Amino acid sequence: MELDRALREIHREVTPHLGEGRVATYIPALARVDPRRFGMAVATIDGETHVVGEANASFSIQSISKVFTLTLALQQVGSRLWSRVGREPSGTPFNSLVQLEYERGVPRNPFINAGALVVTDVLLFCWGREEALGHILGLIREVAADGHVAVDPEVARSEKASGHRNVALANLIHSFGRFRSDVDEILDLYFHQCAIAMGCAQLARSALFLAAGGRDPGSGRRVISRRRARRINSLMLTCGHYDASGDFAFRVGLPGKSGVGGGILAVAPGRLAAAVWSPALNPQGSSLVGTLALEKLAAKTGLSVF
Amino acid sequence: MELDRALREIHREVTPHLGEGRVATYIPALARVDPRRFGMAVATIDGETHVVGEANASFSIQSISKVFTLTLALQQVGSRLWSRVGREPSGTPFNSLVQLEYERGVPRNPFINAGALVVTDVLLFCWGREEALGHILGLIREVAADGHVAVDPEVARSEKASGHRNVALANLIHSFGRFRSDVDEILDLYFHQCAIAMGCAQLARSALFLAAGGRDPGSGRRVISRRRARRINSLMLTCGHYDASGDFAFRVGLPGKSGVGGGILAVAPGRLAAAVWSPALNPQGSSLVGTLALEKLAAKTGLSVF
Amino acid sequence: MELDRALREIHREVTPHLGEGRVATYIPALARVDPRRFGMAVATIDGETHVVGEANASFSIQSISKVFTLTLALQQVGSRLWSRVGREPSGTPFNSLVQLEYERGVPRNPFINAGALVVTDVLLFCWGREEALGHILGLIREVAADGHVAVDPEVARSEKASGHRNVALANLIHSFGRFRSDVDEILDLYFHQCAIAMGCAQLARSALFLAAGGRDPGSGRRVISRRRARRINSLMLTCGHYDASGDFAFRVGLPGKSGVGGGILAVAPGRLAAAVWSPALNPQGSSLVGTLALEKLAAKTGLSVF
Amino acid sequence: MELDRALREIHREVTPHLGEGRVATYIPALARVDPRRFGMAVATIDGETHVVGEANASFSIQSISKVFTLTLALQQVGSRLWSRVGREPSGTPFNSLVQLEYERGVPRNPFINAGALVVTDVLLFCWGREEALGHILGLIREVAADGHVAVDPEVARSEKASGHRNVALANLIHSFGRFRSDVDEILDLYFHQCAIAMGCAQLARSALFLAAGGRDPGSGRRVISRRRARRINSLMLTCGHYDASGDFAFRVGLPGKSGVGGGILAVAPGRLAAAVWSPALNPQGSSLVGTLALEKLAAKTGLSVF
Repeated sequence: MELDRALREIHREVTPHLGEGRVATYIPALARVDPRRFGMAVATIDGETHVVGEANASFSIQSISKVFTLTLALQQVGSRLWSRVGREPSGTPFNSLVQLEYERGVPRNPFINAGALVVTDVLLFCWGREEALGHILGLIREVAADGHVAVDPEVARSEKASGHRNVALANLIHSFGRFRSDVDEILDLYFHQCAIAMGCAQLARSALFLAAGGRDPGSGRRVISRRRARRINSLMLTCGHYDASGDFAFRVGLPGKSGVGGGILAVAPGRLAAAVWSPALNPQGSSLVGTLALEKLAAKTGLSVF
Repeated sequence: MELDRALREIHREVTPHLGEGRVATYIPALARVDPRRFGMAVATIDGETHVVGEANASFSIQSISKVFTLTLALQQVGSRLWSRVGREPSGTPFNSLVQLEYERGVPRNPFINAGALVVTDVLLFCWGREEALGHILGLIREVAADGHVAVDPEVARSEKASGHRNVALANLIHSFGRFRSDVDEILDLYFHQCAIAMGCAQLARSALFLAAGGRDPGSGRRVISRRRARRINSLMLTCGHYDASGDFAFRVGLPGKSGVGGGILAVAPGRLAAAVWSPALNPQGSSLVGTLALEKLAAKTGLSVF
Repeated sequence: MELDRALREIHREVTPHLGEGRVATYIPALARVDPRRFGMAVATIDGETHVVGEANASFSIQSISKVFTLTLALQQVGSRLWSRVGREPSGTPFNSLVQLEYERGVPRNPFINAGALVVTDVLLFCWGREEALGHILGLIREVAADGHVAVDPEVARSEKASGHRNVALANLIHSFGRFRSDVDEILDLYFHQCAIAMGCAQLARSALFLAAGGRDPGSGRRVISRRRARRINSLMLTCGHYDASGDFAFRVGLPGKSGVGGGILAVAPGRLAAAVWSPALNPQGSSLVGTLALEKLAAKTGLSVF
Repeated sequence: MELDRALREIHREVTPHLGEGRVATYIPALARVDPRRFGMAVATIDGETHVVGEANASFSIQSISKVFTLTLALQQVGSRLWSRVGREPSGTPFNSLVQLEYERGVPRNPFINAGALVVTDVLLFCWGREEALGHILGLIREVAADGHVAVDPEVARSEKASGHRNVALANLIHSFGRFRSDVDEILDLYFHQCAIAMGCAQLARSALFLAAGGRDPGSGRRVISRRRARRINSLMLTCGHYDASGDFAFRVGLPGKSGVGGGILAVAPGRLAAAVWSPALNPQGSSLVGTLALEKLAAKTGLSVF
């Protein structure tokens, strides 16, 4: 099915479900968002963009930022990263400390919070706090082809004031001697990267390099090797949705990454990248309507990698 | 790269590694196999078969049988199956009882032993013991296009005599009231399905229906719907290799299923199915050389779904 | 307070609570008992017996049998027992397999089911099935000064038919290579020892040797050394009530052992032994009214070891 | 045996073992202590004090402080405390986060670090930081009959700089909404109470109220009710030594509380209190020689409560 028509149908079909699920409440600045909002965008590797709903409304990308920090860390330290973080699904809720304790401070994968904190430590150790945040924003602005992507300072403050589980996770990892930087600085940078805000159209555009074998199809610049792009995609497929990764793979069949702000990014290798946003979450912490919309996109277009 | 040449190169490249790893010892009948044996086969959806090494030597498929019992159970009860078994990676070693206890007898997915026992219970409840084993063998013989695939009775006996963990798993599931059939019969059928023996050429042929959208490309018969074929593939990708599923997806990038007999099956949707056999296992319980061979196949042919 | 008066007051005070809690239902033969029954007996080391309610009604002692099998195992193999079973509270519900798996088949203490199965294996290995059961009954008959204590065959059958968790536990231990005898024989002997039936008066009498430094005060015969009697008492205090051992120590302050048949045994070192029976259980699996009655006994008589 | 002679014999018998085990290294200020030091003191309820070795040398009482903060919290809020912290042995190593997560921020007992943090929160909420520390020191000075007991500021600083696991624990509890005070203030007060320093003679004296039914036998002042004194003793017996509580009860047979500074406090109800100090620890984190010395004291004097 043609993409514009598919998006219009999806919008119509998901509308009755808007508001189902629950907005994340543990970050006060996110809890105030209207749960019925919805936007979606698809960017193809040959340069088209298709949108529906509030595709330019800016939202907090939260854990989707982990895709970009992982890309940067792989650019910087390559496969040495895998001595500090695993590549296996976690099998427990997204911020569980249990597995981290049994595995003595080596997180299961870079897309759970513990693993993302280790990735943040890598960037902080390479560059220091200001420069690291600069590189993160720089990468996203470049691949999104939009120089205005920025951190929402209110969300960053709100994360910091309420992120007790992340403070617990970081201190637990630190107690096993796994960090090279200061814990408080790691947490500060992490809270800032999670607070980056952008719209669906930008977000879909920004993941095209993963759909196109590591090279940004707009600029032609290589962001990362083809092999690493594939591996980031495989990690998104097996670990991108916390404890619901298997279900997302089963229903959507595409590599993806969700965030508690209600955004989900999905990649169809060789074809396109898609981004969807709707703030109300399912019990596993991913956008309820966003998951539904991507499931419909995959069904209507036959995009599944399987 | 052309497939025959790829297989010859792979054979040459993995030969120095034959014998690395350890043959499964907990089933005495498997412990006697020479760890240096190796065979590999690729069957394409347009009817070609390419082989290298001992591609016709018969080996115990063990957990690879779970792909076929899952196919049968989905044919019989459809999505009602998912009320009894989950679709998420397990995140712990393959026969762990821990998660099963915390989740009160609902296994995480149909490819860990606990989940496969539930699938076996479904088949047993539909058909009874003799008929169920007949249907399992019938399906495999049909899709393998080989009427001689059979259970190795010595391996079945050996499994039964030494399968204490599986007995523990089955009784734990039963203690939560999750079975409909008799526990001893479930275990007996399960030990028999694991003891099915066949060669790589047959095994690759038998998974073509998963590469071809659910329809056997040889006979043209639909085995399962396109949607279910995709979902079986997604489950193989996220859960097919116990606690090393993420790593297999990362390195090979194809849906696959391994067994402790040293076999691995892999599916490249729309293209081909591959089977490899080498008995010595890595610490996660999958064939060490088999994993390496499939990684090389994916690298040489660009088959990764990502 | 004088003991007869204390027992009469206790009886009066607990009567309004009879029937609160729930009778164990997983063993059908136990599920039929009237939850409102109640009996209690106190035997002092100088030979007095005080009773109230149905103190001679026979009930299934279930896990209280673990005190006697532990005594026998210590008589036979001494402190070598502690290489096969620990001495620490388990911290999880009474039949959990989790800890057993993390500790590779070495149960935390001899009073959880897993630990008692190891103790049973010790007795079975020393004597064989018939002789072992003979020794268990022989010890109880001797210390109870009652030759009629016997196994209730219907309860034994019922345990066997419904004891799936114990079958799971035993097979898990076996999978770690921790048993010397046949698993089915261990389970059979275990189900029989749990099905021993006797009344409160007999049961209180039978634990006097633990109150009297290891020597039976009636016959004068030494059952076990003073040091081992103390250690059995310490194990009852720290581990005698599954996941409610701390609470029992807190409220009653005496070494004790409960069973899902509704019986509880308690020992006041240097003074007396008490037994109480009322079938309805609290959520931790100990007699609700029995615990209350012993708490009152300790409060009225100042018997707490603390 | 007469106490002076018992202490002299114990000193002679443990001397060959001095230096066995390992001094706690995670707090740098403790890591510098000579592992071969040893002191012991016994205070009887009728006013005698018996000492041997360096009984007046001041050491960091660490977790032994939990006995005094629990006493204060029970004085202040009574049994309402038990809605916020349990009374069961933890069954896992002393600072494990696992159980805390499964039980959603309600620690198992007041003697593991998590539980002590909740107790500290109670005191902080009642009094504020300065006054709370004043009350803790005030209670200890009173029951020790020594106005000079004080916090070692260097140890307090050292704890703070290296207490990442405690920071993780506190933030995890906070993430479940279980605290009323500020997390950083709770940690600060907790690190200060752990850094209290005193000698064995003072420490033994300070626990006499627990041996004497809640009343300080020197001043005659009631510190806590008889019932609560018994219950504190029962908690020390079942939970006072982290994952080695069962073993301490088994070997020593007395309520006790150990600290990673190498001190152990033990109470023989109705008789005496004992304190021992030797810095090298066993694998469970209690003083190796201290445990041995108390085992010998119990054996020589028949003090076991069992």
